[in-house]
Amino acid sequence: MIVCGRSLDIFFDDIEWFHGFVSPGLVLGGLMVDWAQELIGPHVEADAVSETRHCLPDAVQIFTPCTIGNGWLKVLDWDKFALCLYDKRKLEGYRVWLDLKKSRLFPNIYNWYMRRIAKEDLPLEVLYADILSARRSVLSCRAVRIETPFRKKPIKGIKVCTGCGEAYPASQGEKCSTCLGEGYYV
Amino acid sequence: MIVCGRSLDIFFDDIEWFHGFVSPGLVLGGLMVDWAQELIGPHVEADAVSETRHCLPDAVQIFTPCTIGNGWLKVLDWDKFALCLYDKRKLEGYRVWLDLKKSRLFPNIYNWYMRRIAKEDLPLEVLYADILSARRSVLSCRAVRIETPFRKKPIKGIKVCTGCGEAYPASQGEKCSTCLGEGYYV
Repeated sequence: MIVCGRSLDIFFDDIEWFHGFVSPGLVLGGLMVDWAQELIGPHVEADAVSETRHCLPDAVQIFTPCTIGNGWLKVLDWDKFALCLYDKRKLEGYRVWLDLKKSRLFPNIYNWYMRRIAKEDLPLEVLYADILSARRSVLSCRAVRIETPFRKKPIKGIKVCTGCGEAYPASQGEKCSTCLGEGYYV
Repeated sequence: MIVCGRSLDIFFDDIEWFHGFVSPGLVLGGLMVDWAQELIGPHVEADAVSETRHCLPDAVQIFTPCTIGNGWLKVLDWDKFALCLYDKRKLEGYRVWLDLKKSRLFPNIYNWYMRRIAKEDLPLEVLYADILSARRSVLSCRAVRIETPFRKKPIKGIKVCTGCGEAYPASQGEKCSTCLGEGYYV
């Protein structure tokens, strides 16, 4: 079995190396990336969207060139287990998601995702085996056209904050976000 | 010269492998992570904050165990070139940032960050050499206590959206974000 161009051993190793540990969301996410990559084809420069901050962004970052820092991955905080790979020029691509209806045929996957089973009652190896055996049969996909491309807002001017002396985008106003009270530290 | 426990060759290789290409923000970001790691010490389980979405989150993801998907890295969209590593239990740590005043002694770094020089007038190798030679002398750091810890909001209940049939957190309301009109695709 090959996932994202890797043998299963390397697939699991790469997850553990980057994410710190293997988790069901990463294994399922890797299968979702695998399908989206196959659909979009090998010679397309793709951007990515993850519709949750949990787990899925790491599957995209491990198995595609898209990362948060290079701007090719956008993360939406919607807690939907769905991702999208799309041609960054044509804005056309594929959305792949965990299809709850289909997952009912795999009760462990359904119960894990719906948080209906305690962790101690569902050993991870059992869940991984189910996810790998279900593979695309618990997923759905659809061709999509991106309507609101996540273009970088160009930084129009950089100012030095009169509060802290640090640089910040002039568009934020008279002072930087921190000095306007959004700081998270003292 | 060792940065983040790596020889310079491996430091640059790791940046290119994950981020897709070497960029000044990643090189500077790596030096910032290196300093924060040294300050916080080797035996602390640290969470991270990046105060910009550009470049810096990848430096954290490459050189620390913190990633977006495992929840140990939080990204604030403030466009400030600053990061924070803190003890996830004690909520104490260090904030490291590019100090504009200090960077005036290194005009290439200052002009690059303030976008006062065209890319073609500042070869990347020259800029990298300046960043590596400046090292911590263009940075500042301060001990901080985290006031508003970025704890995961527990997902209280999962509902199946009556619009699209996908799972979403009940806290979002009667329908999921996409079906409420926030979708980015057709």
